[in-house]
Amino acid sequence: MDNETRATVTEFYKAYGEGNAARVAALIHDDIDWIIHGPARIFPFEGPRRGKAAVLEVLAQIAEQYELKSYVPELVIVEGDRAAVLSNTSFVQRATGRTLRLRLVNFVRLQNGQVVELREFSDTFDVVEQALGSWLEVPAIVA
Amino acid sequence: MDNETRATVTEFYKAYGEGNAARVAALIHDDIDWIIHGPARIFPFEGPRRGKAAVLEVLAQIAEQYELKSYVPELVIVEGDRAAVLSNTSFVQRATGRTLRLRLVNFVRLQNGQVVELREFSDTFDVVEQALGSWLEVPAIVA
Repeated sequence: MDNETRATVTEFYKAYGEGNAARVAALIHDDIDWIIHGPARIFPFEGPRRGKAAVLEVLAQIAEQYELKSYVPELVIVEGDRAAVLSNTSFVQRATGRTLRLRLVNFVRLQNGQVVELREFSDTFDVVEQALGSWLEVPAIVA
Repeated sequence: MDNETRATVTEFYKAYGEGNAARVAALIHDDIDWIIHGPARIFPFEGPRRGKAAVLEVLAQIAEQYELKSYVPELVIVEGDRAAVLSNTSFVQRATGRTLRLRLVNFVRLQNGQVVELREFSDTFDVVEQALGSWLEVPAIVA
C-alpha cells in the first residue's frame, strides 16, 4: 500500500504544481475532510471545509489571488494510507507582483486512490507578513 | 527500521510530555540540526539551532516561560529513519496563567537511535495571538 500511496501523492502534487486543475480535481475524494490551518479572517480560503465542491472553491479562490510558481515536495513520508509532505513553494501575489515563498506541510490520507483527508500547516505569521509586504506590529508578550 | 524509528519517536515525545528532561536529552544527537519555524523576534527560542547544547538551551527557555501540560501525538507517520508527528499540546503561560492550545508538527530524522534533525511547524499566527491573549491588528491585504 505504501507504494500506491506514494504514487498517488506524487501525482497529486505534480498535478497541482503544473496547474493541472482537472487532474487535481480527479484526485480529490467527494467526501474530503480538509483543513488549512491559518487565520480565516485574513485568508478567507483557510479553515475547515467538507466535500469536493467546497475544496475546489478554495483552490479557485487561492488561484484568483495567487499565481502558483513552484510547488516542490522536499520530504515525502509514507505509511499505509497516510503521507506527510513538506514542500517548498512560491506564489506571486497577483495584485502586487510580489513573490511569496512558503514551506507548506500537508498530512494526507488516501481512500480508493483519492485524497480523503488533508491538514495543511505553515508558518502562518510569516505568511501574513509576506502577504502584507510589511512587518506586523506585535505588543510585548507578557512572559 | 520503521519499528525502531517508531519506538524511538514514541519514547522521545513520551519523555517530553512527562517532563523527563534527562531522557529527552539522551535522545538528542550531539550534532542535531534543528529549526522551529516561527518569528524569532517574538519567541527568541524559535529559529535554527545546531548541536545538542543549543537545543537544550531552547528547551530550557521554553520551559522557563511555559509549563507543559500535555503533549499528545495524534498522528505518527514513519518511514525508514524519518517520521512526521502531528501532536495536540497545551502549555500554561507562567506569567499569566493562560492556557495555550497548539497543534505542533515535527518532521524528525533519527541516527543511531537519536534525533539528529528536527523541523517544527505550527500555526504561528494563532500561537502569537494566544500568547498575547488578544487579536493582532492586521491591515487589509492588497489582493
